[in-house]
Amino acid sequence: MKQLSTSDPDFAKRFTRLVEARREADSDVAGQVLDILRTVRTGGDNALVQYTQRYDGYSLVEDDDWRVSPERCAEAYEQIAPEEREALDLAARRIRAYHEAQLPENRDYTDDDGVRLGATWRPVDAAGLYVPGGRAAYPSSLLMNAIPARVAGVERIAVVTPTPRGNSNPLVLAAAHVAGIDEIWRVGGAQAVAALAYGTDRIAPVDVITGPGNAYVAEAKRQLYGVVGIDMVAGPSEILVVADGRNDPDWIAADLLSQAEHDPTSQSILITDDEGFAAMVSDSIDLQLGQLSTGKTAKASWDANGAIIVVSDIAGEAPELINRLAAEHVELAIDDPESLMRDIRHAGSIFLGRMTPEALGDYVAGPNHVLPTGRRARFSSGLSVLDFMKRTSFIGLDDKAIRAIGPAAATLAHAEGLPAHAKSVELRLK
Amino acid sequence: MKQLSTSDPDFAKRFTRLVEARREADSDVAGQVLDILRTVRTGGDNALVQYTQRYDGYSLVEDDDWRVSPERCAEAYEQIAPEEREALDLAARRIRAYHEAQLPENRDYTDDDGVRLGATWRPVDAAGLYVPGGRAAYPSSLLMNAIPARVAGVERIAVVTPTPRGNSNPLVLAAAHVAGIDEIWRVGGAQAVAALAYGTDRIAPVDVITGPGNAYVAEAKRQLYGVVGIDMVAGPSEILVVADGRNDPDWIAADLLSQAEHDPTSQSILITDDEGFAAMVSDSIDLQLGQLSTGKTAKASWDANGAIIVVSDIAGEAPELINRLAAEHVELAIDDPESLMRDIRHAGSIFLGRMTPEALGDYVAGPNHVLPTGRRARFSSGLSVLDFMKRTSFIGLDDKAIRAIGPAAATLAHAEGLPAHAKSVELRLK
Repeated sequence: MKQLSTSDPDFAKRFTRLVEARREADSDVAGQVLDILRTVRTGGDNALVQYTQRYDGYSLVEDDDWRVSPERCAEAYEQIAPEEREALDLAARRIRAYHEAQLPENRDYTDDDGVRLGATWRPVDAAGLYVPGGRAAYPSSLLMNAIPARVAGVERIAVVTPTPRGNSNPLVLAAAHVAGIDEIWRVGGAQAVAALAYGTDRIAPVDVITGPGNAYVAEAKRQLYGVVGIDMVAGPSEILVVADGRNDPDWIAADLLSQAEHDPTSQSILITDDEGFAAMVSDSIDLQLGQLSTGKTAKASWDANGAIIVVSDIAGEAPELINRLAAEHVELAIDDPESLMRDIRHAGSIFLGRMTPEALGDYVAGPNHVLPTGRRARFSSGLSVLDFMKRTSFIGLDDKAIRAIGPAAATLAHAEGLPAHAKSVELRLK
Repeated sequence: MKQLSTSDPDFAKRFTRLVEARREADSDVAGQVLDILRTVRTGGDNALVQYTQRYDGYSLVEDDDWRVSPERCAEAYEQIAPEEREALDLAARRIRAYHEAQLPENRDYTDDDGVRLGATWRPVDAAGLYVPGGRAAYPSSLLMNAIPARVAGVERIAVVTPTPRGNSNPLVLAAAHVAGIDEIWRVGGAQAVAALAYGTDRIAPVDVITGPGNAYVAEAKRQLYGVVGIDMVAGPSEILVVADGRNDPDWIAADLLSQAEHDPTSQSILITDDEGFAAMVSDSIDLQLGQLSTGKTAKASWDANGAIIVVSDIAGEAPELINRLAAEHVELAIDDPESLMRDIRHAGSIFLGRMTPEALGDYVAGPNHVLPTGRRARFSSGLSVLDFMKRTSFIGLDDKAIRAIGPAAATLAHAEGLPAHAKSVELRLK
């Protein structure tokens, strides 16, 4: 963990180093992924059989081996604990409500020149969701990807998920049931992403692919961007907590650890105006690390990437630091989070006040937990219904309208050296 | 040009071949571009000097050599023909009006569980626009990229444009003046894109890069996607005209040629229910090709990629064909374009009725002319103010709200094996 103070003479330099520290390893998987994509594109289902045997130790022999049936998902939903069922239902209901309010409006109007103009939003025909298997199999991720697609109106949602040695996570299957998913393919890795993008005999191609995955999955999505739409280039998770001295240090310590426990490359940063409080949070983190089953991961993250920044004045100094870090999650554990929020230009999601730990946003608050990482909040947004929709503009002129604006179009077409453009307008002006 | 009819016994096969025909060459520039990006990232301005000398035959020696001044743009605006000035002004005014109506609304509400939720849209801090030099230097492209960025509220807009042997297109400079651009760098190619993404001593980095360019520029943007936001992966232009027999064949021929004249890889397709009309359009195209200064390019495109599809019934057969082609531009030169539009799920932009040639949309109608090509209208949209903005969600709970939904979050966190997530909630529920 690094400790910085804005009163340090070398603060500017150290803070810049913190902002620019790269936690995303240059992945050298690009070549392997390119190879996998080509093999699946030409080899289709046979290629999937071979990769799945090799990487997941699972045989796709019979027709029944390929998919997890909706009945199996319904069964999983019945078999999990009642409080887990209720929690999934509550999460799904709240995520649905938030994303329904996100649906964009169509436009259709005629302007003063008599030109009819507008735009129509429509869902894509088919979306593919990647759901990791093994350790990082998160039912919450399935809900956060599937529900916006459903709300957008996507008719076909295909899930791909690896089932190592045939095993799948019952909670993920239960979440699939809650989200109404009925097409789940037992394939994973870059090969599954390739199958979704190009299609195979069994798996029809999709238009958009979203969902988290390992370096191979992320690289496959990156390489296929343009063949299909993708959600974003994702990196390690991060949290930035702004807290004054009137917080319980244990609460803030737990908030910081909730990101650190994800992965050694995760990053947790505290900004506070109280040096004594900073020390108490640091002590509490050390204590809690010893009690967590995820302590080893969290410690690795906190040691390598954690930071505490002491400022002399939160309102005066924090906004610039927050904007430069452009973090995925920004927690404002202060009395008046509202006024600080107004100064924040770059953040994936903001958590207001002392009673809003970031974990609420991971599960039940409603907004999407798929958010821009690695300072990408400067230019990108969390997953939304818009990622599963596209807009068609339209234009309609009559005889009068083309006389009003057509000559200008012809002038510009001539000026650009495009005579057929000009002629298509001029013939109608005769 | 290919001629198809839905009554042909092998129509399905031939149409599928038309849909799947690849007009985008597999570009082998990836390695060269990677090399350029690395060189600019480490070499900065010196690398730009060298590349600009090599590719543009232009020396960046003095400070004054690097930029085109706003005064030079104002001068260009004064020197072009009065009707060109008026046309640029009219285009800018209409593009601005359409994009202003696109600005998204922020949300801020408290739901039934007492949870405050919302989302705030903000512009990116800085946008970089690529403007091609030489033959394809289009003032309209500058307006279509710069105005949405301005309307979005982007404070800094940096234009990069190659000036081969020092030459720049006066109309492009005039358009820059109209759009209020005051930062124009005389660099181009992949090296200019790299400079915008990484920043150099002279050129501050930007957050989003948009604008058309050659294969090197397109590949540079693709490789830098994630480091910065980009508009889209663009391919050759295309038009799909649906026209019944009650059109002037010369008009429809000119519409088809207006895409064909862009590039030999462009594609123009006519769908009609009148075989005689199809023949007249074909004849008119042959005639007009001989009269166009762009005839050679247009002929190459029409010969290689053009198609006429005769259907027995437009309302019944055209929608499926249109949706499968998912074209950039779809012109509906029929009496009731409205009802056909309702059946179109995939199109970049739709042009309604006999008096709306596509070229109006290229210049003055108002909607953006940067549109998805190569069937990407299935999953992506034209350029808009949203490409220059990003959304931050926010969440605020009080003591009562966390008691309502916190326990479900803790349950799911435990189920996912993330104890610090659970603890951050549970400590607050005590």
